[in-house]
Amino acid sequence: MANQVSKQIFKTLFSFFLFVLLLSDTVSSVRKSIDLKKPCKHFVLRLHNIAYDGDNADNATSATIVNPIGLGNFNFGKFVVFDNPVTMDENYLSEPVARAQGFFFYNKKTTYNTWVTFTLLFNSTQHKGTMTIIDANPMMEPTRDLSIVGGTGDFLMTRGVVTLTTDTFEGSKYFRIKLDIKLYECY
Amino acid sequence: MANQVSKQIFKTLFSFFLFVLLLSDTVSSVRKSIDLKKPCKHFVLRLHNIAYDGDNADNATSATIVNPIGLGNFNFGKFVVFDNPVTMDENYLSEPVARAQGFFFYNKKTTYNTWVTFTLLFNSTQHKGTMTIIDANPMMEPTRDLSIVGGTGDFLMTRGVVTLTTDTFEGSKYFRIKLDIKLYECY
Amino acid sequence: MANQVSKQIFKTLFSFFLFVLLLSDTVSSVRKSIDLKKPCKHFVLRLHNIAYDGDNADNATSATIVNPIGLGNFNFGKFVVFDNPVTMDENYLSEPVARAQGFFFYNKKTTYNTWVTFTLLFNSTQHKGTMTIIDANPMMEPTRDLSIVGGTGDFLMTRGVVTLTTDTFEGSKYFRIKLDIKLYECY
Repeated sequence: MANQVSKQIFKTLFSFFLFVLLLSDTVSSVRKSIDLKKPCKHFVLRLHNIAYDGDNADNATSATIVNPIGLGNFNFGKFVVFDNPVTMDENYLSEPVARAQGFFFYNKKTTYNTWVTFTLLFNSTQHKGTMTIIDANPMMEPTRDLSIVGGTGDFLMTRGVVTLTTDTFEGSKYFRIKLDIKLYECY
Repeated sequence: MANQVSKQIFKTLFSFFLFVLLLSDTVSSVRKSIDLKKPCKHFVLRLHNIAYDGDNADNATSATIVNPIGLGNFNFGKFVVFDNPVTMDENYLSEPVARAQGFFFYNKKTTYNTWVTFTLLFNSTQHKGTMTIIDANPMMEPTRDLSIVGGTGDFLMTRGVVTLTTDTFEGSKYFRIKLDIKLYECY
Repeated sequence: MANQVSKQIFKTLFSFFLFVLLLSDTVSSVRKSIDLKKPCKHFVLRLHNIAYDGDNADNATSATIVNPIGLGNFNFGKFVVFDNPVTMDENYLSEPVARAQGFFFYNKKTTYNTWVTFTLLFNSTQHKGTMTIIDANPMMEPTRDLSIVGGTGDFLMTRGVVTLTTDTFEGSKYFRIKLDIKLYECY
């Protein structure tokens, strides 16, 4: 009889075990859990910006659409639209892996400070899709963390953070930004 | 004795089962899991845009607030603000179920290309609340996926994707966009 | 023999229990579950806006960069950039705990209505980091819920909702907004 009881119990245990395994498996297959110490994707890109100066229409990748209004000496109100190439390495002439499309504007009286939003549009063999960034960008700081709030295609529903570092800043003519992208939600 | 043991075991098993059921129930009640193959909500709407031309103030639902700057021939820098009616069917005169409020601008030298962000404000018997979209909108593509990054009211904390298709495009005067909305986070 | 069986069973049960506990613990340590009835963080701040009028450069915290275009009588197209102080209490002169940087614009022909996006930049002993808001802001309503779509630093990956109430509105010169912030995703 003890034998029978134990058989019954092991049967119950086994089906129970299976149930829990299935449960946990279902959960993990639809949603990778979030661990802020370990991004689910991590890669580095370079963004190149050549400002339109009236004479460089062929090369320009960005242009001012609203001029500074004269409040303070730090371009308050200057509004810039861009369609910038994004590359894997630091070379502006490398094949772009993405475009960065969006805008930034200056919004401080006492220092150069911007607020920015843009979308990275990937169209390479490796990645197709978009991810969108929106945050303040206090450009005088050595590094700035900006929020990645959504994505489509290969990056559908993604979220994370991108750390911006100014690699090079040649007046208002050309600048290159390092984009250190860490995604914490991947599907 | 075997009987007593088995009773004890089943008691333990039973309370354990209950604990796991409660656990899984708690989890599912506060967060519906995400399954990218199966949106938790899916519906289609139509957005109508009538551009202001200086003479149609009564009908206009959008207006240019910054003119193109003359970089290329594709409206680079043109900035448009809108408050567009959104309907269930294709008829502009149908009772709107939502308004689409936001802006778009042109940002490419070589083709018509826009970047857009807007909020859908629902105020019908069926839905009250908002959801906000932000992404590039390469308008020459037959369909474009844009990120839905947040919401309030009935759509509190929602996320997802909206597929845009241009139904009709009558010059710069009137266009109608199909919004195929798929939400993957619902509460 | 029944004794042996029961020992075996309890051993199995015990290790199983441990496994489930570990599983649930792992999940909770990487992701706090979402409960819309109970924000994981909840606090109230005040935002102060002093509009630039051409003469108050020292005090101004916001400025119009694009003027209304004359479509209707409710400032359609007026576009305002700001860098506003945010305080714990209602006093404009209190030590700011954050800055609110972003923009809003008017977009309706028939009433005063705005659409807004801004980032709260915290830099106090209590909080360092950002959170970004984006939504319609129908300013004539007594309260408005706006989406919080992302964050960095102490607010990395956060999401939630902020309820805006207009505390004071002195023409276009000064206004103070109560920000009732409820975060539902915290890490």
